[in-house]
Order: sequence, then structure tokens, then C-alpha cells
Amino acid sequence: MDIRPFLTPIRWSEDQVHLIDQRVLPVTERWIACADWAGVAEAIVTMAVRGAPAIGIAAAYGVALAARASLRGADLQAAFDGLAATRPTAVNLFWALDRLQRQVASATAAGEDLGEALLSEAQAIHAEDLAMCQAMGDHGAALLPANVRLLTHCNTGSLATGGYGTALGVVRSAARAGKLLRVYADETRPFLQGSRLTAWELARDGLPVRVITDNMAAWYMRQGEVDAIVVGTDRIAANGDVANKIGTYGLAVLAQAHNLPFYVVGPTSTIDLNTPDGDQIPIEQRPAREVTHVGQTQVVPDGVPVENPAFDVTPAHLVTAIITEHGVLHPPYAEGLRTHVGKSVAPTQRSVH
Amino acid sequence: MDIRPFLTPIRWSEDQVHLIDQRVLPVTERWIACADWAGVAEAIVTMAVRGAPAIGIAAAYGVALAARASLRGADLQAAFDGLAATRPTAVNLFWALDRLQRQVASATAAGEDLGEALLSEAQAIHAEDLAMCQAMGDHGAALLPANVRLLTHCNTGSLATGGYGTALGVVRSAARAGKLLRVYADETRPFLQGSRLTAWELARDGLPVRVITDNMAAWYMRQGEVDAIVVGTDRIAANGDVANKIGTYGLAVLAQAHNLPFYVVGPTSTIDLNTPDGDQIPIEQRPAREVTHVGQTQVVPDGVPVENPAFDVTPAHLVTAIITEHGVLHPPYAEGLRTHVGKSVAPTQRSVH
Repeated sequence: MDIRPFLTPIRWSEDQVHLIDQRVLPVTERWIACADWAGVAEAIVTMAVRGAPAIGIAAAYGVALAARASLRGADLQAAFDGLAATRPTAVNLFWALDRLQRQVASATAAGEDLGEALLSEAQAIHAEDLAMCQAMGDHGAALLPANVRLLTHCNTGSLATGGYGTALGVVRSAARAGKLLRVYADETRPFLQGSRLTAWELARDGLPVRVITDNMAAWYMRQGEVDAIVVGTDRIAANGDVANKIGTYGLAVLAQAHNLPFYVVGPTSTIDLNTPDGDQIPIEQRPAREVTHVGQTQVVPDGVPVENPAFDVTPAHLVTAIITEHGVLHPPYAEGLRTHVGKSVAPTQRSVH
Repeated sequence: MDIRPFLTPIRWSEDQVHLIDQRVLPVTERWIACADWAGVAEAIVTMAVRGAPAIGIAAAYGVALAARASLRGADLQAAFDGLAATRPTAVNLFWALDRLQRQVASATAAGEDLGEALLSEAQAIHAEDLAMCQAMGDHGAALLPANVRLLTHCNTGSLATGGYGTALGVVRSAARAGKLLRVYADETRPFLQGSRLTAWELARDGLPVRVITDNMAAWYMRQGEVDAIVVGTDRIAANGDVANKIGTYGLAVLAQAHNLPFYVVGPTSTIDLNTPDGDQIPIEQRPAREVTHVGQTQVVPDGVPVENPAFDVTPAHLVTAIITEHGVLHPPYAEGLRTHVGKSVAPTQRSVH
């Protein structure tokens, strides 16, 4: 494929990891240079970098930084532990760290240079992510009708991945196939990833994006302005329940009420067969300030409690299809998800370990 | 009844109308003094004052200001016309102006002082609104179970009315009846009336309010944390379709999906029998900046189009009950709405005209 993402939000250059600081978009394009793993960990915790695949890739580069800086095993283990502690619900953070951990073992056994071996592995994870996004995008776009009007939530694009995006990969592939009429981007309170990030990267790509507040989605569905909903995912349980950004569950209920397809797009690394269903997924509560303030503007009175769950869980029965790099799954999901995870540990991805 | 609202957002004092400036809440309590009708009109257009009943009361005082300032009929007509042009969807703006217009005729015929007659009428509209809110609150609270957890949208409280509120009147009456465990207030993007205004006035009243972003409502319903939804309305069509703040329709769909009652609370003046159904209600599009900026913080990239419908329409079949000052209506609504409007023109309110 000749698809080239317009932006790679994570770059390795001159022994540093460079991350685009997503907190200052859409007004400013600023890059953060991380010379050590702790800098990468801080970027993840503070959401300068966000999106499950991007977090995994950044963490992998973080481990590579640690390995190149020190030959002491204790230092490397501190990097693994510190990076693993950054975001408890991002399952492919752990998947990426696990790949690096196994690379430590095999490179050590083979007497290879650990710094170079781990950097190569981080770069491989990055390149694979790009290829996976392009595959997901194409699989998803094949499901869509001509002149489709999509609605998406949060940011699952170039900025959230190694490039191209998951749900926004479907948007990009639909545009390349000449099918895309419009994308509505939910602004996605409280962190506004939709209006700040999705709108920014789609507009930069020349794609026809329009921003709505989250509470407008139902009304545009009702008016027949939306043909399908495409969202990403942070974790898919073994039964097909989907954890994703707060607000996703509501969109799924609304999609069903309006007879619209609800598509979940995520790489196989997001599937967690060890989690039987959504009830087992811990919901991270994020700081109150994300709700009480937008920038420096206070929007909630002092002393009033707020809620800020980062995620919700959409039950499998509301999901029309799950789109991975290997293809499209339809309900019931349990068997298909097992098969997909089997494919992802097949030769193309893990034979080198 | 001895219920006294903690705040009267509109006050007549020393030949001026004093309006609390809702745009700077919840951080600052600032009052705007209007010495002429144009100042009142500007306060309505700029949303310093908002909420259908409050707009009607403010407009009535605006006409009184014009009548006291000038004895020329043309000047008074300019005030009527200017105030009528401020908000096209607020039906009880027109209802209030119509009452004042009829008072002009009767006072002129009786040779009364027009300035005093119109001020008295404006004050009567204000006092009746307070009494109606208390009646609505009590009717609504009677429907609720013990330890109820309510969810509300936008601001329909003391700030939106002459005092006490419509949907928030139900919250207040539930609290006084010892039934209220908690109220979730949707923040209500883009103008954030829920987080800025509802949270502010309920907290000031000592009521247990908690703020959520709009896209969290579905998840709290799913988790069994919500027992009923109460919302206000800007216009009720003859068939029971309800126009209200954008996001109301989505809540109604979600309420039905979770088997929760969805209550609409509004004074009889909100019922518009001349509008057969919701399809006939024009939807005001508000300025893009409300979506693109929060305070001074830009949250949408330059050049990206946004949508900003002020209202949506909830079809009657999603409404569990409509609560007015005269009691509770259940579906089908057409007959009951006609009866209610008949009651509202009965002796208690209009016999003096």
C-alpha cells in the first residue's frame, strides 16, 4: 500500500523520543523531546501522549531509552515498572512492555546489544501499528455505503496511534475509496479529544469534518444525518464487551435506537481474553479538574462534586461489528475474538521472538 | 405555602430592572441594572438572562420601563417589537408580551396610568410564575419515590424563572418532602448552564448536586445510579412533542432504553396549541463561538465548521408525564394539553383583563 500518514506523532531521532504534545492542540503544534524513560512516563501520565496504541509505542521507545542509557538490569526493570504504572486500563501498554520484556530475554541469551535490540523492537512495534491501522481502515471502509456520513467519538487517529488511526483509519480509507461525505466529530468532554485532536488532524488531512457537542449526537441521528458510528476501543473483553472513552456506551444505545450500525475498530492487541466480560474492566477515575475547568475557565462552582470516569463499557449486543487488522467480526464475538488473537501470535508478528 | 426561593434573579427597584448576569456565574455574582427596554432586550439576546419564564418576566418589565419613560404609543410599540425579536423559540416571551399588549388596551380604555398599569401587570406575571413553580414542584415531587436520584439537564431553576424553578422546582419540592438523595446535573454544552447555573443554585440551596458531562448520563443510568430524569421545556406542541435544550432528546431515548421515567416540567404558558407537532418548531442555530471556545480557550481548530442548534425536539411517545402548575398529564397528551390551556385562561389568572 502507498498510504502515507500525514503525521507521525511519535518519532525516534538522535537518541531521543519526540512526542507531539496533544494537550496544546489545536492551537499550537509543540513537540516534547524525551531523553529518558521517566520523561516518556510523565508524557503518558499527563496525557501529552494518549490513545492506547500510541501509549504502547511510546512506552516501548521508553524502555529502549532506558536500555541504551544503562546496562544495569535493575535500571531496566525500574523502567518497565514505571511505564507499566502510567495507565491502568490501557491493555496494549502491557502488551508492548511484554514484547520488550521477551526481547530482553532473547537478546540477552543471544549475546546481542540490548540497547539496539530493544530499539529495533520498539521500531517494529511502531511499523506494525501503522500497517495494522491501514488494514483496519480498509476492512472498515469496505462495510460502508457510498456518500457515507460517519459519526466518531474521542480521538482514534494518527495522534492516538503510530499513524493513520483506528476508527479514523476507517474514515481515511473511506475517503480514499471516494465514499466519505462527512464526519461528525463529538467534542468528547471532558478532555475534548474530538474537537481538539480529531478535528485538527482530519482538517489537516483535508477531510470534511464537522464538530458537534456530545449531546447533539442523538439529534443528528434522529434527523437522518448520520449513517454509521465508528469508534475505537481501549480494551475488548473475551465476550465482545468494549471499554472505550466515556460517552461511547451512550452512542451505542442511541445507534441501536436509530437502527444505525455501531462499529468498533481496534487492533488485536486490544483484545483481552483474560477479561471474560466488561464487568471485570476497572474504570479509571480521572482528576476533577478536567470537568471543573476548561483551560483556565472555571465552569463548576467551588465545592460541588463532579464525576470523571475515563471510560465506559459497551455491552457486546450493541456492537454491530468489531474491525481488527485481520478482518471484520460479527456477533456472537467469543469464538471470533479467540481466533483473531490466535492469528496475531502467528508467524507474521511474533515468529522472531 | 411558605416556600421562599433563595434567589430572585429579576428584581424591580428604583425604576430599574435588575437582572443577575448568568454569563459570569458560577465564579462571580454580578447584577445588570436596565433603565430602558433596550437594555433588557440586550440582556436577553446576549443570554445574561435566559430560561423561558425568566425571559418572559424580564420582557414584561422591559415593556413597563418603556411605558414609564414615554407616553408616545410609537415608542411603546418599538419596545414590544424589539423585545419580541430577541429569541424566536421562547413561546412565553410572546405570551407575556401579549398579556402586556392587552393591558395597554384595557388601561387605556379605563383611563388608567399606563406606566403603573404595565408595571403592575409585569409584577403580577412575576408573582404568578413563582406560585406556578411551587405548584409544579409539588406536583412533580409527588410522583417520585423515596431516596430518589434525579438527573437533570440545562438550567430550569430559580435562575431560569421568577424563582424556585420548573424541573428544579421538582428537585426542591422533593428535597422539602425528604425524598431527595442526589441530583446529577448534566453540564449541558455548549453554554454549560448545568454546571455553571444549576450546580451553583442547588449548592447555594444546600442540595446534594453532582456534576457530570453530558456524555456520562447514559453510563450512570446503566449503572443504576439514576431513578428518574426531570427536564424543563421551552415549548410543548399540541401533540405533546417537547422542544428543550439540545441534548434533551438524547436523554429521553436513553431513559426509555433504561426503563426510567422521563418527566417534562413546564408552565401552561409553554404549551403552544397553535403548533400541531414538533416538526413545526423552528430550531434556532446559535453562534459557532459557543462551541469553538470555552471562555478564552479555543477548543476547535480554526476553520473547522461546527453545529450549534440551541434546541432539539423530543417526541411525545418518549415523555412519561408532563407536569404543569395544574397537575400531571400522561399520554396521550393532546386532550390533556387542551384542557390545561383552558384552565390557564380561567378566572384565577385572566379574569382581570
